[in-house]
Amino acid sequence: MNPADPLSDFSAFQPLLDRPIEDKLRDFQREQRLKHLICAAQLKPDLLTRLGRLADMIRRMARERESNLALRQLLSHKRAMLYFTQPSTRTFLSFMAACQILGITCNEVRDPKTSSEIKRESHMDSIRMFSSYFDVIIMRSPIANFAECCAYMMNRQESQEMRSVPTINAGSGSDEHPTQALLDFYTIQRSFSFDAEGTPAESRLKTLRQSYPELQSGPAGKTYLFCGDIGRGRTVRSLATVLAQYSSQRMIFVSPDHAVLGLDPVLRSRLVSAGVSVHEFNSLDAKLNGHSILSQTDCLYMTRIQREHNSAADSKEMAELDLSPFQLTQQRVGQLKEFSPIMHPFPRDSVVQELPTQIDSDPRVMYFRQARNGMWARAALLVHLLDASEGLFMAYRRFFRD
Amino acid sequence: MNPADPLSDFSAFQPLLDRPIEDKLRDFQREQRLKHLICAAQLKPDLLTRLGRLADMIRRMARERESNLALRQLLSHKRAMLYFTQPSTRTFLSFMAACQILGITCNEVRDPKTSSEIKRESHMDSIRMFSSYFDVIIMRSPIANFAECCAYMMNRQESQEMRSVPTINAGSGSDEHPTQALLDFYTIQRSFSFDAEGTPAESRLKTLRQSYPELQSGPAGKTYLFCGDIGRGRTVRSLATVLAQYSSQRMIFVSPDHAVLGLDPVLRSRLVSAGVSVHEFNSLDAKLNGHSILSQTDCLYMTRIQREHNSAADSKEMAELDLSPFQLTQQRVGQLKEFSPIMHPFPRDSVVQELPTQIDSDPRVMYFRQARNGMWARAALLVHLLDASEGLFMAYRRFFRD
Amino acid sequence: MNPADPLSDFSAFQPLLDRPIEDKLRDFQREQRLKHLICAAQLKPDLLTRLGRLADMIRRMARERESNLALRQLLSHKRAMLYFTQPSTRTFLSFMAACQILGITCNEVRDPKTSSEIKRESHMDSIRMFSSYFDVIIMRSPIANFAECCAYMMNRQESQEMRSVPTINAGSGSDEHPTQALLDFYTIQRSFSFDAEGTPAESRLKTLRQSYPELQSGPAGKTYLFCGDIGRGRTVRSLATVLAQYSSQRMIFVSPDHAVLGLDPVLRSRLVSAGVSVHEFNSLDAKLNGHSILSQTDCLYMTRIQREHNSAADSKEMAELDLSPFQLTQQRVGQLKEFSPIMHPFPRDSVVQELPTQIDSDPRVMYFRQARNGMWARAALLVHLLDASEGLFMAYRRFFRD
Repeated sequence: MNPADPLSDFSAFQPLLDRPIEDKLRDFQREQRLKHLICAAQLKPDLLTRLGRLADMIRRMARERESNLALRQLLSHKRAMLYFTQPSTRTFLSFMAACQILGITCNEVRDPKTSSEIKRESHMDSIRMFSSYFDVIIMRSPIANFAECCAYMMNRQESQEMRSVPTINAGSGSDEHPTQALLDFYTIQRSFSFDAEGTPAESRLKTLRQSYPELQSGPAGKTYLFCGDIGRGRTVRSLATVLAQYSSQRMIFVSPDHAVLGLDPVLRSRLVSAGVSVHEFNSLDAKLNGHSILSQTDCLYMTRIQREHNSAADSKEMAELDLSPFQLTQQRVGQLKEFSPIMHPFPRDSVVQELPTQIDSDPRVMYFRQARNGMWARAALLVHLLDASEGLFMAYRRFFRD
Repeated sequence: MNPADPLSDFSAFQPLLDRPIEDKLRDFQREQRLKHLICAAQLKPDLLTRLGRLADMIRRMARERESNLALRQLLSHKRAMLYFTQPSTRTFLSFMAACQILGITCNEVRDPKTSSEIKRESHMDSIRMFSSYFDVIIMRSPIANFAECCAYMMNRQESQEMRSVPTINAGSGSDEHPTQALLDFYTIQRSFSFDAEGTPAESRLKTLRQSYPELQSGPAGKTYLFCGDIGRGRTVRSLATVLAQYSSQRMIFVSPDHAVLGLDPVLRSRLVSAGVSVHEFNSLDAKLNGHSILSQTDCLYMTRIQREHNSAADSKEMAELDLSPFQLTQQRVGQLKEFSPIMHPFPRDSVVQELPTQIDSDPRVMYFRQARNGMWARAALLVHLLDASEGLFMAYRRFFRD
Repeated sequence: MNPADPLSDFSAFQPLLDRPIEDKLRDFQREQRLKHLICAAQLKPDLLTRLGRLADMIRRMARERESNLALRQLLSHKRAMLYFTQPSTRTFLSFMAACQILGITCNEVRDPKTSSEIKRESHMDSIRMFSSYFDVIIMRSPIANFAECCAYMMNRQESQEMRSVPTINAGSGSDEHPTQALLDFYTIQRSFSFDAEGTPAESRLKTLRQSYPELQSGPAGKTYLFCGDIGRGRTVRSLATVLAQYSSQRMIFVSPDHAVLGLDPVLRSRLVSAGVSVHEFNSLDAKLNGHSILSQTDCLYMTRIQREHNSAADSKEMAELDLSPFQLTQQRVGQLKEFSPIMHPFPRDSVVQELPTQIDSDPRVMYFRQARNGMWARAALLVHLLDASEGLFMAYRRFFRD
């Protein structure tokens, strides 16, 4: 037992935690389906395609009252626990809305100091309590590995023929945030399907090819530009890892010249090993092969400098940084390709203004749509984890032919 | 940009805020229907009649299990955000219940310091997030004009063919609380319909006319007595303004002789311009035209002295005030007309006791029914704003003939 | 009026509070049914049998999607207020889940300092507000007698033909926690039905009788061992009182030798008067009639030392207590009868470890199942109080024959 904190004693799971990632993945998986979503490494291309299809169906069904009501019947016999001891209004509300779309009843524990902890209940006992009352646990915690250990405990209960429920990691420690990667990928997938409302995808792609002859649909073979807090942004790390599974990728990382903000060498070498062409710069105005990087960008992913994770020393140093090279001014937006989505995990910083509100009405802006995509993608994940894909297909076919 | 607080930078909407009220009203309106409810000035007689009819139907349908279930289907595909950064248990729960009656799923953000604000997200970005996930925003905020600016932002999004949702002002700054005026008016409307449970209105009115020969049904031609914190009570201001739209009104304002508690001269002159006969006194025992004011009152509206808005100087001065002339003792209740409703927006002050519990069982007491009326009136407003009036009529006709 | 705290002025109910318990019970009762659940003394054998049957039906219906959806229709026209100003995550979530199973919409007030209290609203006015908006009040409060006074106020409203709703005491002061007794009893009832999943009860009982020839089904004629914080554990007090209604009981109380932790003499004499054979010890290793007490135990009920109720002096004294005699080690578990359920109201203390996690997989362990039993038992209570038993029977028969 860890004498320092008996409440979060995960020692029983240490051997499982210490395994290489690929060994772990089997534990989060059933034959054809996820059992838990713990890390972005689980988001394989096959699964991403399936979840994207579910999300598209849910989105479409939600539009009309009748199909919307059918959606709300789909999982109305299920109850979710949103265990969010690390605050996050945006992710929390997105999961709430996702549950509600499917009729799942929501419950929440958000206060980091719950009454049970005052009574010295271990975190693992709290999780078992949740699994007694609820059908899925969606958790966000500042404690590293907590979501992963929950998954192991649920598996152990299952092996003892006791009640076990799926666990979703909604952000754990500074490391993983797999559903953010999922929604970001879903947004990219939709952007690169070129399937605009009312316009057949083929015709839009044909038009674009007049200016960009080599443009292909799908996430492969693109240039992605990530800008901002590259070092600490777990969304950047997760999304880049997911995208690296597709062929012929180029990734450009633009961050201030500061130790904690730049590209992590471990991530860099992982991407390079996966065949990605990686480039690093200290300004959005940098050039690559003689041309501005923005003009070569197929997808721009902006991020906020996460001041709240600064050490005192960091804060002092960063106060002196010039952040203007990382601000997406209208002039810089003008250099982007005609179709390049502008993304941001949000919130954006209203003081630093890495995304000034002046550009909000640009048609390439995706950051507001990302929020709605997150809701659909999370609903899709819930349908998948709670084994309701077949039910969703059947309900969908009652309303739509394709 | 306001350098002091980039989070609540409403400068983009300043030209809209600076317009006269009647110019603004068009922005909160569709052709035949409200788009948002921001201020009491939107509560025109026509609309009040329509909302009152909807509220009566909802109230009746809620009584029986089968029609109640039909009600709960009416808007069960909708999700509401209750954004209450200014605390108010009563208004909050009333809106929750109103939503639930109609099957609307509720979500809430109540902590004034949400995680997004720590990350320096602007209030306007928070609102856009809510409009991404939810179908109506019900907000109560200490920030003046916030609800109004939200309405403008939603309108701007609509004009850009982006997602836009109705905004309801559930109390904004010290100024507006239009749904309180709505429920107060609804209570008055019902009281002056003389349509008691089981007794036909006509016969009750006929009986009352033996004692009060000039009594008419409806809110017009009445004497309203407002007592208590006249100066700071936004409910008094809003309700008086709404009632002034009806002909031949007399209003008596009774408040302690203190600068902040008396009738605001601006409101006074607005009422007088509207043709209201206005009188001011410093005691419930005052006389007008030789008779006690209570004996001439058709409707008594009591209020609490809002100590929580006191400045330090106010507190000191008010501690010395004798509040007994503003207390509704049983002796004073005895002077009221036989039918005069006794109202109070609640909570009442259990120390000052402007309404002693001894009078609670008097048949004229309306203050507990006001709470339930508020629930029905708010449900009616939601039906109206979410364009479900037609659906409600159809559902109602399945159960009732009239 | 109590000048010290006008907010919780219960003086109007003092004569009712001062009556002997059996006189009070009529006030919480309709002819055949509970009107409120305020104290464990209401849990008579007849009622316990009926609630147990309802709970079994609900549990079974919840298992399959179709019957589960029928359950969720049962009370979907009802709204509950969970008024929990004394924190308790576990009881709170259990009630939430119970409501949700039946389709009841939940609302909560948990902050002890609500905005209404700041405005000096009396507790009784708050309760009246809740009864305006909601159909049942589930309350947990640190204020003694609060739940009881609510019940009296609701009764008074009913007698005045005003709106009245059932009140459930979910823990009041240090005294009563009747729904914990209900779920504990339900767990014992199920354990002593010997009706294991898939195995007919008769055959299991026959097998057990080879080792325990006198074993009977049902809660009567058993040896119950209560261990831990006997003095302050309201769950022990309530459960022992309920069990004492059955014949031929033996109860063993094991607690540290400290004034506040031992058996309350009042409870002791009440049990003895009811015919219970009572024994007290200071270690789980004690002997009775020459044999270890554990080997004679039919049902073991462990509890946590409730440090949070310690006075400063208690804390100092208890820090020096040796708690090892009250720890359920694997060696001690080994002495228990083959069928003896191991219970604990939870949370358990992860520092003291009265229940070490090593024993969690023992088949006699009931403490995780107790949580789920609590959910079913509370749902049964809600069905009973909201007069939906008949509806539940009818819905059940649509799916099951027995």
